[in-house]
Amino acid sequence: MIRNFYHNERCVMRYVCDLDGEKLAKIKKEYPSVICTQAVQDMIAVDAVDAVVIATPVSTHFKLAQLALAAGKHVLIEKPLATSVAECAVLIQMARERNLVLMVDHTFLYTGAVQKIKALIQEGVLGKIYYFDSERINLGLIQPDVNVLWDLAPHDIAIMQYIFAGMRPVSVWADGSSHVSSTSCDVAHAIIQFDTGVVGHIHVSWLAPLKIRKTLIGGSKKMIVYNDIEPSEKIKIYDKGASIDFGSETAMKPIYRSGDVYIPAFSDEEALKREVNHFLDCITLGEQPLSGGAVGLEVVKILEACDRSLREGKKITL
Amino acid sequence: MIRNFYHNERCVMRYVCDLDGEKLAKIKKEYPSVICTQAVQDMIAVDAVDAVVIATPVSTHFKLAQLALAAGKHVLIEKPLATSVAECAVLIQMARERNLVLMVDHTFLYTGAVQKIKALIQEGVLGKIYYFDSERINLGLIQPDVNVLWDLAPHDIAIMQYIFAGMRPVSVWADGSSHVSSTSCDVAHAIIQFDTGVVGHIHVSWLAPLKIRKTLIGGSKKMIVYNDIEPSEKIKIYDKGASIDFGSETAMKPIYRSGDVYIPAFSDEEALKREVNHFLDCITLGEQPLSGGAVGLEVVKILEACDRSLREGKKITL
Amino acid sequence: MIRNFYHNERCVMRYVCDLDGEKLAKIKKEYPSVICTQAVQDMIAVDAVDAVVIATPVSTHFKLAQLALAAGKHVLIEKPLATSVAECAVLIQMARERNLVLMVDHTFLYTGAVQKIKALIQEGVLGKIYYFDSERINLGLIQPDVNVLWDLAPHDIAIMQYIFAGMRPVSVWADGSSHVSSTSCDVAHAIIQFDTGVVGHIHVSWLAPLKIRKTLIGGSKKMIVYNDIEPSEKIKIYDKGASIDFGSETAMKPIYRSGDVYIPAFSDEEALKREVNHFLDCITLGEQPLSGGAVGLEVVKILEACDRSLREGKKITL
Amino acid sequence: MIRNFYHNERCVMRYVCDLDGEKLAKIKKEYPSVICTQAVQDMIAVDAVDAVVIATPVSTHFKLAQLALAAGKHVLIEKPLATSVAECAVLIQMARERNLVLMVDHTFLYTGAVQKIKALIQEGVLGKIYYFDSERINLGLIQPDVNVLWDLAPHDIAIMQYIFAGMRPVSVWADGSSHVSSTSCDVAHAIIQFDTGVVGHIHVSWLAPLKIRKTLIGGSKKMIVYNDIEPSEKIKIYDKGASIDFGSETAMKPIYRSGDVYIPAFSDEEALKREVNHFLDCITLGEQPLSGGAVGLEVVKILEACDRSLREGKKITL
Repeated sequence: MIRNFYHNERCVMRYVCDLDGEKLAKIKKEYPSVICTQAVQDMIAVDAVDAVVIATPVSTHFKLAQLALAAGKHVLIEKPLATSVAECAVLIQMARERNLVLMVDHTFLYTGAVQKIKALIQEGVLGKIYYFDSERINLGLIQPDVNVLWDLAPHDIAIMQYIFAGMRPVSVWADGSSHVSSTSCDVAHAIIQFDTGVVGHIHVSWLAPLKIRKTLIGGSKKMIVYNDIEPSEKIKIYDKGASIDFGSETAMKPIYRSGDVYIPAFSDEEALKREVNHFLDCITLGEQPLSGGAVGLEVVKILEACDRSLREGKKITL
Repeated sequence: MIRNFYHNERCVMRYVCDLDGEKLAKIKKEYPSVICTQAVQDMIAVDAVDAVVIATPVSTHFKLAQLALAAGKHVLIEKPLATSVAECAVLIQMARERNLVLMVDHTFLYTGAVQKIKALIQEGVLGKIYYFDSERINLGLIQPDVNVLWDLAPHDIAIMQYIFAGMRPVSVWADGSSHVSSTSCDVAHAIIQFDTGVVGHIHVSWLAPLKIRKTLIGGSKKMIVYNDIEPSEKIKIYDKGASIDFGSETAMKPIYRSGDVYIPAFSDEEALKREVNHFLDCITLGEQPLSGGAVGLEVVKILEACDRSLREGKKITL
Repeated sequence: MIRNFYHNERCVMRYVCDLDGEKLAKIKKEYPSVICTQAVQDMIAVDAVDAVVIATPVSTHFKLAQLALAAGKHVLIEKPLATSVAECAVLIQMARERNLVLMVDHTFLYTGAVQKIKALIQEGVLGKIYYFDSERINLGLIQPDVNVLWDLAPHDIAIMQYIFAGMRPVSVWADGSSHVSSTSCDVAHAIIQFDTGVVGHIHVSWLAPLKIRKTLIGGSKKMIVYNDIEPSEKIKIYDKGASIDFGSETAMKPIYRSGDVYIPAFSDEEALKREVNHFLDCITLGEQPLSGGAVGLEVVKILEACDRSLREGKKITL
Repeated sequence: MIRNFYHNERCVMRYVCDLDGEKLAKIKKEYPSVICTQAVQDMIAVDAVDAVVIATPVSTHFKLAQLALAAGKHVLIEKPLATSVAECAVLIQMARERNLVLMVDHTFLYTGAVQKIKALIQEGVLGKIYYFDSERINLGLIQPDVNVLWDLAPHDIAIMQYIFAGMRPVSVWADGSSHVSSTSCDVAHAIIQFDTGVVGHIHVSWLAPLKIRKTLIGGSKKMIVYNDIEPSEKIKIYDKGASIDFGSETAMKPIYRSGDVYIPAFSDEEALKREVNHFLDCITLGEQPLSGGAVGLEVVKILEACDRSLREGKKITL
């Protein structure tokens, strides 16, 4: 974020604020023109500061975003937006009243891969969507203040909301276990059912032996494998499918289709760079953020439902 | 099965019975010495027949196995053993009373890979087991008389019972959806909780664009990736892990360990060949089958619980 | 071969001849209707035998093929056709005079993958062809009577001749080393230059730690990666390329193109089955074999040149 | 290089010199404390400058390095050291006379992977070394002033010299073709024979559809696959091999060994960072550079022999 804002020609990075003095010193060495401070007020109080980027632990998001919005600053904040739907609603309201941009850093929405997938779905290439099945696992990074769902699932929830625009989640079920942490789960599965019949499954883990970021998206006409670890062939579109011939006399007869595979090229511009430019467009041109407060709230709504499902051991209707 | 029994020197394959005349004709051409029939009674009634292999749709298992056991034949039967715990119990009882071998074709238990994994776990190489996470998906083969869990999950359930011998499943949760079939689910997830804290997750699908058979097994000391599609490097043992230093003053501090990876060699003898020999050993030497009736019943018990969970939308306590 | 001819409805397999009595016994058990013999004359002398398949060490090919052709039998023979161009010429002449089919088992020509590649090249999809670069390595199987080039390179040479139909090889260079064998090379590289500027490189080895069968084919418009080990995605067509803008003022300026990747579906019918049917077509319908004597001779011509290059340490002009 | 020297605490980066004004402006923005100039003399003439890093086209290496050494500066220079053995010898002599460090940027020698491989070979883990087979191909980056061998093969030549320390190259053979460039080859193969019987093969290309950086190293006891593209499992050690039982009565009998595979962990410290520190150690502590002038000369000697082989179409004895 610092690097991207620093090098963007359309803005000037004035302040970096961090409680950690050592980190600040390193940043000062790399970006000598930037004022480094441990007091957020030093930055918030300055009129010339138009926008603030908040990249802090989730538990501090609400307070810091409130502070910034109250001071009339546009806000770009790391995901998830806040720790509850109620907090999200307050921030959205504050931004709306002050006519400020409130944008959540759901970075994946700005990747060429996810934008390509959205385009394919919108063009109807996949046909009727069946499922979204995501594995987002690695060794670490265990977070102190949130469970693994709040840490990793926002990526997949935001991607689903973006590519399945118009579909409404109707129920959430989650299961998690705490193998290493004593308090919050470090391995978890969540299933999100949409009103259209699409089923989203998310597997997240801080305790996996290898890094996997793979999503299968199944449709009646085509199926996608989106492997974010692949350096250059991230999206594979399979012309595969199955259907049942119910008209057959004796019994149901499955028919399989297995055609070509297609790996589309797409822009490999850095997602963060795009996101920073989009944030600046929202501020200067009044564009609506792709990942604004409302998107952030929807993500948190599902995370809240996951937590409730974890506690109550049952499916939660939204 | 036919090929393996035919070529096994320790037995003679006398009969093949199939309702499909065309299939019988092909078998007759390939194995001219074998008597082919469409009437099961032709085979069951013959005293010289000591054992029967049942490889038919699940819905017919109970009736055919009853017939064979009643006629004093040893039985090797495809998985799952039957369509309910009650049926399984009847077959087990019949076999016990007649001192007959009742063995279920849980083929994976006879693979070098699964036997290696069991040995590693028994030797304590993995430390405390955390989870078993399996993806068993493909395009097809959609079954007419069972859902995808009954078709594919028996493999993973049997593997877990085998490698986690002594652990007891305490709850089952399942979620599935019918995208192509009108009646039974074609994509599903199941979570099986064991009394030791181990969590087993199984993802099965008939509607995936590619064939995946991959299992992650996480432990406190080592983690395994078991990729059954790999032709030669099926098992990778990762010396990776995470722990929390709770003694740290300020906050919890995760510690990660990332060492060597080890790909053990193991026997690549065909699993079916081993299984056939084991079946013959059970008959002639009185050995206990690795995958006997009791194992088959345990698998069906969990499948029944999955079906109940699908119907009731909640976790089922076993 | 035995399995494929046995199960082909268009012919009857009468005899199997092998010097190894144990092997014969196993074959007899599997194919009871077949007459097994250790004397080739038993088979050659029989009028009812129309065709003979020769799958023996290369050093015996010439003598056995002569015997069969002299007796008026059509011949399908394992690659390479014989141990010298002179021998090949004799066999071709004999077959021509007797109006018999002489076909060499260059199996790869009958695979869906190679046929697809040929079609793509013929349609001009690749543009001007630049190179063919093949890696065909494994641990074993070390042959007693030929070096690794004669064992493995016939596959690649035959594939090149087939897909580059009309191009003429003009020079051959080979380098090999004997690490394990005392006499003949077990790791080797060969480079075959064609009159069109296409350069073929073949890397063969009996001493590799893993099995690789991968070919890159570069063209001005598209490039192909043909990975024969891949179970289902053997051919990838890359819309990639580079060209030089010589018109640029200052200096040469390379221009790169990186578009979509496309994985075509093609028939996965067993190559041997196709080949057997083609052999039968050649006999019964008078078709010209795809891999007839002339193709076999061309392959041996290049292998001979490789041997000369190995001995003389220089490039051989054909 | 700029980033690494800038952030190294043991030195101060004073000047950056580039003929391209735009590049300089960007560097100035990122490193405001650095003096940017288009005149190399500005930098060379300054007494306070102890060392110079030369990262320019190969054709300028000799002149710039002469200038720097003559001015009493230590020199770190990109590979290859110069365009001829004669030039290399002059630079080495100049550095020796002035007691200056002359180091070539053969970065791979400073990677954890290559250092691990060297250690394994030194410990005798591989047994007798058979071959080194490297594929280093990609689309681009086509160089204007050198052919693809001079651009890419220095990596493999330097690695071989480093890990096979003590072995002496005895002959070189190279083959290349110019498909896109009109003058110099863009795809090439080189074979370097060592006095111990080790055969090194290098495949380099600017015209490949995908990026491959893979090296096989075969030995009598173990074999290594070094895949530099793999993010985390770069080195695989195979306990595989073959030998011939010449004592067998009838004929030679190959014996194969196929054991475990082992993927060692090693430091993932950035190679450039290590290299920069090593350069500073050489200057301040008088250490001998791992990739000093003599190493650079040996690399150029083989590149020169490759060019001669390309011209003369035959193997060159060194």
